Amino acid sequence: MLIPFIPFFPNSSMAPPKKLKGLVAATITPMTPDGKINLPVIRQYVDYLVNEQNVKNVFVNGTTGEGLSLSIQERKQLAEEWMCQGKDKLDHVIIHVGALNLPECQELARHAAAIGADGIAVIAPFFFKPTNKVRVEELLDGIKAQIPTFQGVKFSDTDLLDLAQCIHKNGTGEFEFLYGVDEQLLGALALGANGAVGSTYNYLGRQTNLMLQAFAKPDFALAQQYQFLTGEFLNFVIKLGFGVAQTKAVMTSVSGIPMGPPRLPLVAASGEFIAKAKAKLDSIVWPNGD
Amino acid sequence: MLIPFIPFFPNSSMAPPKKLKGLVAATITPMTPDGKINLPVIRQYVDYLVNEQNVKNVFVNGTTGEGLSLSIQERKQLAEEWMCQGKDKLDHVIIHVGALNLPECQELARHAAAIGADGIAVIAPFFFKPTNKVRVEELLDGIKAQIPTFQGVKFSDTDLLDLAQCIHKNGTGEFEFLYGVDEQLLGALALGANGAVGSTYNYLGRQTNLMLQAFAKPDFALAQQYQFLTGEFLNFVIKLGFGVAQTKAVMTSVSGIPMGPPRLPLVAASGEFIAKAKAKLDSIVWPNGD
Amino acid sequence: MLIPFIPFFPNSSMAPPKKLKGLVAATITPMTPDGKINLPVIRQYVDYLVNEQNVKNVFVNGTTGEGLSLSIQERKQLAEEWMCQGKDKLDHVIIHVGALNLPECQELARHAAAIGADGIAVIAPFFFKPTNKVRVEELLDGIKAQIPTFQGVKFSDTDLLDLAQCIHKNGTGEFEFLYGVDEQLLGALALGANGAVGSTYNYLGRQTNLMLQAFAKPDFALAQQYQFLTGEFLNFVIKLGFGVAQTKAVMTSVSGIPMGPPRLPLVAASGEFIAKAKAKLDSIVWPNGD
Amino acid sequence: MLIPFIPFFPNSSMAPPKKLKGLVAATITPMTPDGKINLPVIRQYVDYLVNEQNVKNVFVNGTTGEGLSLSIQERKQLAEEWMCQGKDKLDHVIIHVGALNLPECQELARHAAAIGADGIAVIAPFFFKPTNKVRVEELLDGIKAQIPTFQGVKFSDTDLLDLAQCIHKNGTGEFEFLYGVDEQLLGALALGANGAVGSTYNYLGRQTNLMLQAFAKPDFALAQQYQFLTGEFLNFVIKLGFGVAQTKAVMTSVSGIPMGPPRLPLVAASGEFIAKAKAKLDSIVWPNGD
Repeated sequence: MLIPFIPFFPNSSMAPPKKLKGLVAATITPMTPDGKINLPVIRQYVDYLVNEQNVKNVFVNGTTGEGLSLSIQERKQLAEEWMCQGKDKLDHVIIHVGALNLPECQELARHAAAIGADGIAVIAPFFFKPTNKVRVEELLDGIKAQIPTFQGVKFSDTDLLDLAQCIHKNGTGEFEFLYGVDEQLLGALALGANGAVGSTYNYLGRQTNLMLQAFAKPDFALAQQYQFLTGEFLNFVIKLGFGVAQTKAVMTSVSGIPMGPPRLPLVAASGEFIAKAKAKLDSIVWPNGD
Repeated sequence: MLIPFIPFFPNSSMAPPKKLKGLVAATITPMTPDGKINLPVIRQYVDYLVNEQNVKNVFVNGTTGEGLSLSIQERKQLAEEWMCQGKDKLDHVIIHVGALNLPECQELARHAAAIGADGIAVIAPFFFKPTNKVRVEELLDGIKAQIPTFQGVKFSDTDLLDLAQCIHKNGTGEFEFLYGVDEQLLGALALGANGAVGSTYNYLGRQTNLMLQAFAKPDFALAQQYQFLTGEFLNFVIKLGFGVAQTKAVMTSVSGIPMGPPRLPLVAASGEFIAKAKAKLDSIVWPNGD
Repeated sequence: MLIPFIPFFPNSSMAPPKKLKGLVAATITPMTPDGKINLPVIRQYVDYLVNEQNVKNVFVNGTTGEGLSLSIQERKQLAEEWMCQGKDKLDHVIIHVGALNLPECQELARHAAAIGADGIAVIAPFFFKPTNKVRVEELLDGIKAQIPTFQGVKFSDTDLLDLAQCIHKNGTGEFEFLYGVDEQLLGALALGANGAVGSTYNYLGRQTNLMLQAFAKPDFALAQQYQFLTGEFLNFVIKLGFGVAQTKAVMTSVSGIPMGPPRLPLVAASGEFIAKAKAKLDSIVWPNGD
Repeated sequence: MLIPFIPFFPNSSMAPPKKLKGLVAATITPMTPDGKINLPVIRQYVDYLVNEQNVKNVFVNGTTGEGLSLSIQERKQLAEEWMCQGKDKLDHVIIHVGALNLPECQELARHAAAIGADGIAVIAPFFFKPTNKVRVEELLDGIKAQIPTFQGVKFSDTDLLDLAQCIHKNGTGEFEFLYGVDEQLLGALALGANGAVGSTYNYLGRQTNLMLQAFAKPDFALAQQYQFLTGEFLNFVIKLGFGVAQTKAVMTSVSGIPMGPPRLPLVAASGEFIAKAKAKLDSIVWPNGD
């Protein structure tokens, strides 16, 4: 699934856009027990990401945030709250504005610009969709001419050939390539990815940041150990059935922030899942006695 | 893709809902060259369906109508126009109210009830979706308890085992089963389907009605000939690439009603496609010198 | 999966090939408890098909017969035994000679001819395979020029458009179209199929023959009832997990003929499956107190 | 596709099996213009791999070698020729002995042992196959108890989570993990893969060996450049349609060794493909003026 992102600049006198590097948390949308969005929790959520996970970039209203299960009005409210609470705390707030119909997608993009978001992102069409699989690498060819503010791609496929071609054909560092398959991020880093967008960085951001550091050193054995351990957790929960509803429950359990239930058609994680996932996470011994 | 439909009754003194039988045209949404919906064309469209195709039921804002590419506002306007123009001419106007998010879906359903639509229909979740394939037959088990106004299913899979189980487990004729794979409708009729919803009934409704008559007689050889000939056309255009954009072009070409271009992400049919499709359709010799 | 079949004629003075109509049982390969093929059981098997199921055509060494799990030598022995035991009892013995490599496929075809089989059939390539889905209808175009003895197709897809095109483009009755999706045979009959090849005709051949009679009359309500009831059984076992191993167990249970275990990689049906499947089959009340 | 490999030891007094590291060429099967296997070419092929590509391990009769399109007899002849010509020149000769039926698979395994092959490998069942996707990591659990000579896995999936779990759960270096998706080998190396089996190492072995060296140093920028360039070639030919037939043609073109046509159902690469692929390969400028 391709999500290019495009920065907006509040005014023309500004410096060029800040470079986006490292981890981006695909944020969860907190909800009240009766299924309304729970805006007051966002403040606590921002502080948790920054202070506990060392993650300063967020991707709001994406798949993890159930963005497509929210009304246009709800999506705008959430975007505003993240901008407001993230002020002076977060580096990048990217708003996902993808929608099935163009008029609403355009409305969301204008709104993101108006509230000063650092960038927008748009999911590729998934109802009416291209009949042929298009490689991202082909999409980037001449994209600046079509989208002058184009800045990079969230690349969420396990096909690293395409990723490598994207990175090296844009070798001047013009674009950023954020990888979106959390469990094999280390492989993407080896091929040149700049950072990552994912749901696990909500609660495993600190450890993944240590993996990035080990990779930069380079200390491969250590980086592999972090990747293996996050993979061990993911592998475990994937076997139990792991989706956005389960991510929501894990985040509540790890952070203590009440993320609430998911919205239909998603169904809340079972108590059994939550107990098993927590026990697994607690059992992991991170390097350096972490 | 499952689309159950559910009738609304304007007031409780009314007779039980009219039985829906025969063909239902999945309507196209006419657009102006600059991509706005073209409401004034609906009146002509209604007359064409009734007078030229002998089709008196419509399914509005579905996939063929690019319903999910329209804003909520546009969908309401279209539903109102079909209700208004169809008054005293159409038997059933069913409004598709499916949306990715529940709040908007509920809003559309309330609107359909308010304008007196004969029924609503809802596409199954397709972004977040069930991990296991569920058979329609299982869904119908006890559905009246959950949805008292439940009336039937648009069944659009080539798996006729599931269809046959649905039909015969609901053997009192309580529900209606409208088949949605136009090119093999005759097979579904043999298994007991009540009618059909499809895009080809916009322009091949008359011939398909003759197939229904031949089947009812029964005159199998004749019914097979109609099915073969519609199949020959579909087979031909499918090889060229046949989707909603192409259906729009074929309908414009056959009916003379300006359906206009599709909306992005769909791309208009090529001139070459339109010419070839028209030539193919013109070359078909229907039974009885039709 | 396409399996064209091609008749062999023992000598040129013979009459044109017998027409193949009605049901063809895709035979099971009986095995001993230690996994050898159990040839002595074939005699009893032939009598059972003819006398109890009213099925006089067989398709040997196909998927149901685990043909591709057998060595070349075993396949030859089985073919010979079916020819020998079927003499004067069976109408058509078709030998599946498909193999992954051409030399062995050709060897099996020559052997089938040598022993006087009524026809051969060949599975389409499935390891190295065409990148594009080819419609059967396209394959038949001019096939007589390439395979002068070509006689027809076992059509095992739920896509009835392709089937209908095949049948009507070969409208002089030159070829035969045997349908291979047992649970929706009635739909295929409506579109003009001549008969059927399937595994259920081993143990539900008698009832399916009654469905064919009802269809020929035509008595649709009755035909639908048979199709619904065989579908009810299949639907039930498919939910439990239904493959060749399970077919083997059901046939043993219904016929009393010891079909034995399947060969690896298939694993024998569980006792629980066998009990449930038997109970389901026993619970079905066929029309006319059957 | 899983291919575990299992070493054979000629006699019990021998030292433990040699460790298999680095690149393994999935060998092509040379054929004569009339489709027979061309044994005399193997000698030249061995010398080319060793002297020109610096590749000393081979995987014979696998997918690239059209192993499943060959008769049992042909597979034995090829295995013998590789053993004979590779003597004192190659480090490891692994024979793929997978077949659809167990008797022939066992026969090939015994033959490989008899001729002193360094190991055998077996493709996972692909006609009758498990209904659930099994993770390789689960298969390895306790495998030594079942297959005492088990040595490792050719891992050919882009899912690196599974690979990483395999590697780290077998952390004592007991098993070897050879990666089989040539175009993203660098990602797999980062996660701990020991080496690689692939078809491109027939003609890009030398450059891939330089990538392995750069990775070991570590010089990431250089390793990425090699991976990008091999990826650029593969990306180019994949768009043209790239399979075993095309690999055969490319190898003929690069090495000058006459690999001949593929066997049906594969069809020889077109002259246009060969010309374009050659031009692309010639246009690539490898690092260090290579």
